[in-house]
Amino acid sequence: MTSFYKSIYKSSLTLLTDFYQLTMAYGYWKSGVSEKKSVFHLYFRKNPFKSGYSIASGLELVINYINQFQFKNEDIEYLKNLKGNDEKNIFEPEFLDYLKHLKFSCDIDAVEEGTVLFPNEPILRISGPLIQCQLLETPLLNIINFHTLITTKAARIVSVANNIPVLEFGIRRAQGIDGGLSASRAAYIGGCSGTSNTLAGKIFDIPVKGTHSHSWVMAFENELDSFYALAKVMPNNVVFLVDTYDTLNGVKKAIEVGNWLKKQNKKLIGIRLDSGDLAYLSIEARKLLDQSGFKDTIIIASNDLNEHIISSLNDQGAAITSWGVGTQLVTAFDEPALGAVYKLAAIQNIDGTWKHSIKISEQSIKISTPGILQVRRFYKNNYFFADMIFDTLTEKNEIEPIIIDPEDINRFYKIPKECEFEDLLKPIYKNGVQVYQSPKLIETREKCLKMIDKLHSSIKRLLNPHHYPAGLEKNLFDLKTSLIHKMKDKNNSFS
Amino acid sequence: MTSFYKSIYKSSLTLLTDFYQLTMAYGYWKSGVSEKKSVFHLYFRKNPFKSGYSIASGLELVINYINQFQFKNEDIEYLKNLKGNDEKNIFEPEFLDYLKHLKFSCDIDAVEEGTVLFPNEPILRISGPLIQCQLLETPLLNIINFHTLITTKAARIVSVANNIPVLEFGIRRAQGIDGGLSASRAAYIGGCSGTSNTLAGKIFDIPVKGTHSHSWVMAFENELDSFYALAKVMPNNVVFLVDTYDTLNGVKKAIEVGNWLKKQNKKLIGIRLDSGDLAYLSIEARKLLDQSGFKDTIIIASNDLNEHIISSLNDQGAAITSWGVGTQLVTAFDEPALGAVYKLAAIQNIDGTWKHSIKISEQSIKISTPGILQVRRFYKNNYFFADMIFDTLTEKNEIEPIIIDPEDINRFYKIPKECEFEDLLKPIYKNGVQVYQSPKLIETREKCLKMIDKLHSSIKRLLNPHHYPAGLEKNLFDLKTSLIHKMKDKNNSFS
Repeated sequence: MTSFYKSIYKSSLTLLTDFYQLTMAYGYWKSGVSEKKSVFHLYFRKNPFKSGYSIASGLELVINYINQFQFKNEDIEYLKNLKGNDEKNIFEPEFLDYLKHLKFSCDIDAVEEGTVLFPNEPILRISGPLIQCQLLETPLLNIINFHTLITTKAARIVSVANNIPVLEFGIRRAQGIDGGLSASRAAYIGGCSGTSNTLAGKIFDIPVKGTHSHSWVMAFENELDSFYALAKVMPNNVVFLVDTYDTLNGVKKAIEVGNWLKKQNKKLIGIRLDSGDLAYLSIEARKLLDQSGFKDTIIIASNDLNEHIISSLNDQGAAITSWGVGTQLVTAFDEPALGAVYKLAAIQNIDGTWKHSIKISEQSIKISTPGILQVRRFYKNNYFFADMIFDTLTEKNEIEPIIIDPEDINRFYKIPKECEFEDLLKPIYKNGVQVYQSPKLIETREKCLKMIDKLHSSIKRLLNPHHYPAGLEKNLFDLKTSLIHKMKDKNNSFS
Repeated sequence: MTSFYKSIYKSSLTLLTDFYQLTMAYGYWKSGVSEKKSVFHLYFRKNPFKSGYSIASGLELVINYINQFQFKNEDIEYLKNLKGNDEKNIFEPEFLDYLKHLKFSCDIDAVEEGTVLFPNEPILRISGPLIQCQLLETPLLNIINFHTLITTKAARIVSVANNIPVLEFGIRRAQGIDGGLSASRAAYIGGCSGTSNTLAGKIFDIPVKGTHSHSWVMAFENELDSFYALAKVMPNNVVFLVDTYDTLNGVKKAIEVGNWLKKQNKKLIGIRLDSGDLAYLSIEARKLLDQSGFKDTIIIASNDLNEHIISSLNDQGAAITSWGVGTQLVTAFDEPALGAVYKLAAIQNIDGTWKHSIKISEQSIKISTPGILQVRRFYKNNYFFADMIFDTLTEKNEIEPIIIDPEDINRFYKIPKECEFEDLLKPIYKNGVQVYQSPKLIETREKCLKMIDKLHSSIKRLLNPHHYPAGLEKNLFDLKTSLIHKMKDKNNSFS
């Protein structure tokens, strides 16, 4: 894949942003602050699905987006004609001219795709002219929110599938075209083995998979005829959907045609169950297949599956050798949005020093973290040990080996000296120039699967997972606390 | 809007289909049945969100999709190189050549966008060569499922908003780019007054709206400075977000700048609340504004709103004059997928007569309805009275004024003679030629709002809505029942 957005979208996507970003951009420009160097972080505040972890995803598409970011004539034309409440043009021509010549010039640091991540850890750090950071807020959130959500969902499903392949079959109920395409990509990173979405296969080089539908069976005189017809036209790729009329009868017919295939020196690759009690039916189907000498024939199960149902089917001893997961995966059905936010954390003063910025809220989870942040991951015995968010403005030798969870100060950890570490935010753009190349999708997928192996199993548990130690470095925690107090003093509601 | 897909997508979308549609297409072609005339219906089995009704939506995008449907060289190239389990090419060259020259030639009848609809009523009826109907299954489901879901959600939200404008602010947490764009369009049909999504505004001609974010406030020395800065640069369009630090203090600062605006002969258009107790804060903010002579200043509320929260805020007397609804609307958060299906209902015999098709299941809700169906809506006193699904193969004079709900045969209704009626499925394509022009989006929106007015309020209730009478015409009910019995006989699992 060279560039998803450039290859698939004809229209400029620069206006894929909240309108207020444009009016604020205009305001910054008019107020003379548009070029002030600013730092924003994009991060989520809690893991989706009550998961113990998340998987960062979407970076390559962010790069795609930024590389096409430019106001085209058609965009300027549209903005030129917009009227305000007074029926006058909202934007003045000089500003539109400024936009037309605007060139992306920020630094971006980001967590690589397929990286295990925890709440409050920046996925992206963007640093540059205030106006550019602001205009990019909405599309970056759109891309990262959805991708990270689906990759995390896929990883959870794959983690309970016990090394049995999980195929993504979601396009028909996905949220629009890109809801399908991006979901296929994100699900593959999270460990899915293939997709039914042919266009995603073509664009992202993901293996495409599929069997046949009930209408195939219904288009013939009867089920047996339809199975013979399929076996004759695709003798090397035979998987029968057996539940159009009655599942176990369907299995018997599949076996009959399987015997015919054997005589042609071909084999019955698999059957698919798409309804009914999948535990009972798979066990009975397995018996029928085994008794007839079809021990290698796989059993694919589909029908509104998710991680909880797969886990339960495994507990019941279901004889399933491949999972087809659709709607629940591609829409992240039980929590269809990740609430990642994008917050201003520092602004440069005229003298080149930085002013820390913080957003206050009555809910402590909603208070942002100030600084120019980096995430340091500590390892012990090849497992993740703890994550430290620290301010890169803190002098290196002053960084303390102590982390504190700002939402619960009793979660206080000391990092042992022997721990190795890695800083997760890597340079992607320097002064607007791309300095990072995304790996191939299949490499990102492998990396993701390997990384999940480094998580203690208690963190991967579906129900009440263990809380992974992640928090603010002590200096940053103290800075944040003092800024909160200062802000509350300054904006006291009882004044 | 001329064509959304053609204007925005560079890539051919023909492969946006489940891979099994292509292998089945190949199978039909090889088996010599690809040109058999077939009838499929696209319908949902239950209303989403426990709603008493749904709104059909997405037809214009279906037309867009079909008008670009054609296998391009790049699609053929991709398919040519796909390998099966035997590492051999899956498709033979003659079939790929057939696809390359395939031209859409079906009839499509559809329910117009913005039409109130109920379970089991076809939204689309597609009739034509089996292979074409099959290839279109996935994209038609993708488009109609998502659009209908979001328009229905928007209609529910608008219906509890008591004629107060609802703005759609969802793009940042939408499911991908099209998850945002299509949602903005669908939400507008359902009655939203505008969107924050600038690209949706540009493409679909939807009014774009917005205020400013917390980062605007944080980018200045203090809140008051930021409000003055905004008032100076956009004196005719001033809406202040007042909750960056402390909401009611923010309102006082908005009033201070509002007084300054008055001196410039400008006005404070509104304030926005984005956190905290919206009932309490809006009432208190209203008092402060009114006391200071800002009776016309509107109060916009946002923050994870949905129909239930808006309804509850109204019950509490919240003083809100505009709603901003985001994530919950554009992802249909509480039920993020509509489970519409696409089922074969009839196949033409060689002699030109039709064979009815039915898909059996142990769950009666999953049994499909055979025939070439039409939906007839009866009116009484300008309200919807009942809907009848009937088979157009039934002789006109044999259609009985009786409907039966196949899921509960005790729901049996007789249609009074004096009822007027309208058939909902309208011709869209005849032999592949488009015979229908979509109205302007704003007209569709108006039509939708008017139609919802014709629904009895008991059906629009959020909690346990009244069940609208909709079912099968008696002959169709009898035919379906007899086919079920025949099928069960033929495929008896105890044989």
